[in-house]
Amino acid sequence: MMKFKSPPVNSLSLDFLTEFCISLEKLENDRACRGVIFTSAVPKIFSSGLDITEMCGKSMEHYAEFWRAVQEIWLRLYGSNMVTVAAVNGSSPAGGCLVALSCDYRIMVENPKFSIGLNEAQLGIVAPFWFKDTFVSVVGHRIAERSLQLGSLYPAPEALKFGLVDELVPEEKLQEKAMAVMAQWLALPDHARQLTKSMMRKAVLDRLVAHREEDIQNFINFISKESIQKSLRMYMEMLKKRKS
Amino acid sequence: MMKFKSPPVNSLSLDFLTEFCISLEKLENDRACRGVIFTSAVPKIFSSGLDITEMCGKSMEHYAEFWRAVQEIWLRLYGSNMVTVAAVNGSSPAGGCLVALSCDYRIMVENPKFSIGLNEAQLGIVAPFWFKDTFVSVVGHRIAERSLQLGSLYPAPEALKFGLVDELVPEEKLQEKAMAVMAQWLALPDHARQLTKSMMRKAVLDRLVAHREEDIQNFINFISKESIQKSLRMYMEMLKKRKS
Amino acid sequence: MMKFKSPPVNSLSLDFLTEFCISLEKLENDRACRGVIFTSAVPKIFSSGLDITEMCGKSMEHYAEFWRAVQEIWLRLYGSNMVTVAAVNGSSPAGGCLVALSCDYRIMVENPKFSIGLNEAQLGIVAPFWFKDTFVSVVGHRIAERSLQLGSLYPAPEALKFGLVDELVPEEKLQEKAMAVMAQWLALPDHARQLTKSMMRKAVLDRLVAHREEDIQNFINFISKESIQKSLRMYMEMLKKRKS
Repeated sequence: MMKFKSPPVNSLSLDFLTEFCISLEKLENDRACRGVIFTSAVPKIFSSGLDITEMCGKSMEHYAEFWRAVQEIWLRLYGSNMVTVAAVNGSSPAGGCLVALSCDYRIMVENPKFSIGLNEAQLGIVAPFWFKDTFVSVVGHRIAERSLQLGSLYPAPEALKFGLVDELVPEEKLQEKAMAVMAQWLALPDHARQLTKSMMRKAVLDRLVAHREEDIQNFINFISKESIQKSLRMYMEMLKKRKS
Repeated sequence: MMKFKSPPVNSLSLDFLTEFCISLEKLENDRACRGVIFTSAVPKIFSSGLDITEMCGKSMEHYAEFWRAVQEIWLRLYGSNMVTVAAVNGSSPAGGCLVALSCDYRIMVENPKFSIGLNEAQLGIVAPFWFKDTFVSVVGHRIAERSLQLGSLYPAPEALKFGLVDELVPEEKLQEKAMAVMAQWLALPDHARQLTKSMMRKAVLDRLVAHREEDIQNFINFISKESIQKSLRMYMEMLKKRKS
Repeated sequence: MMKFKSPPVNSLSLDFLTEFCISLEKLENDRACRGVIFTSAVPKIFSSGLDITEMCGKSMEHYAEFWRAVQEIWLRLYGSNMVTVAAVNGSSPAGGCLVALSCDYRIMVENPKFSIGLNEAQLGIVAPFWFKDTFVSVVGHRIAERSLQLGSLYPAPEALKFGLVDELVPEEKLQEKAMAVMAQWLALPDHARQLTKSMMRKAVLDRLVAHREEDIQNFINFISKESIQKSLRMYMEMLKKRKS
């Protein structure tokens, strides 16, 4: 079990991503570890997604390094040979939602105050094609198209309805349930399960691998636009005000 | 709001398509216009689809011109930068359904006498691949496969069940609801929404652009077959009899 | 109506596949035959899928011949010009499920003791990409991904929920219902229906045709691994014990 613990909101900063990546690689190479459950040690939030401070007022080099780290975590997580279960015990917008979507199974606490979704459009930014591909694979094209355009966040019960999460449980049952699901998946022979997973996900993974540098360049060009920087600054100020 | 008014059934004749196209282009270039609601000024019918008289007993040149106009309206509508909402206040078979499918959101009057679907197969003709692609993107592969083979028309309540329309409302609430939906979509920053929409629809749009002349040739070859002309003539006579 | 009768479980042996293929070809070339209903003459089982004895302890040449026969039956069935209806009157795992998935419509007896699914992973083997493509086309990517990794078998009522089968009926109504469905599909003009079906399925069919020899080679390499042979032998012994 891997617990995200980067208060206050488990935002995916460059440091967080780097550490996440190293931990994941270690587990992947540890033959004794066949599966991993992701959950949060921070109350009410699974992960708030990409850290906006990494995308605001930094150098081109920094943007490139940050984006490469985001790509890397997704490539490792979506392509993992391990069984991956997301035990979503809090809200999970944007990049937090991507982490959950990249797992094999998603269990969420049935609290309607916790919401999940790819809400990038609400910040005036655009989810990259591989966020979109991952999303379409889970909820289908129509729901993805509408949700991405509106930047929709769904309360847990709604997210269940169209399969954005697989199951809801009361908070106190989350860990137990996640362990039971893991046991069910680990009952299958690893080799066949891994080949099957790779068959299902290879096309989407290969697409980013083939366009990785281009995708970094796109991100840099987009994020360094003055209009985008301005909306991100406004969004951060709004967050600060809300907090205080 | 754009109201289709071509009695008796808003069929998509060459004239209608040409005017539709010009109006759409004007709105698209008008920076003050960020969204458009499509509805019908004719009672009980949204649009009856492609005008069969344009496909029957005409010259090859006419078929080509007509088909190019059908392609053009779809390319503009499906690829529109504006928010597009279909307020479906009547039946909407074949090409009428395509117009609705090409919008960002579909609201339909909850009258079970109004039906919607791609029923081309019932007339002995075949929906082209881009009708199919648009349909699959909304309802998924399985529903599309079955519905296209059977030429199914669905009463509004059934269409809602599998997402062919997004919402049903009483007829008197349709306009109000369409305005509310439009307001919700316009609350998002245009730039991010447009890039997201383009990301979702580009592959399908590009496919027609790449095969446009081939698709026109296919249509001409198919429609000018004597067997097809015969079934279209029979269908038109049936419609005339039913009317009288 | 074609009745599978190869007791005890209608397993798809090389002999069965060869005969199935010849029968199908005959019907396909018989212009009087526009549709076929597949069902089982063996109680409680539609088809148990590929015959494991054909994959165990045989020569490379035998594996190649067997796999080519499996490919051939799928190419003919999935690409059939006829209307194909599966009247699933018993359990239908693995290859049996593929036969049902390849039809235009699936009716299953509403007995929860009858289950259906692609459970290859449970045997430690991997469904090939064209099983996967066929499955994804029917149930969508997410359900397919989860079900294939877990090798899930679904009782009839669950299979209905996500569209793995189209309809459930009491056993005594199965034949009547299958005939009614066939009549509904045959009411459409053949030519338009066939072109539509081909448009929906061509990409998936073409993919196997383009990679057929490679797919045979993959199968041989995989199945002749000692670890795979061992799990198949164990599985067969388990089946024998269960029987006695």
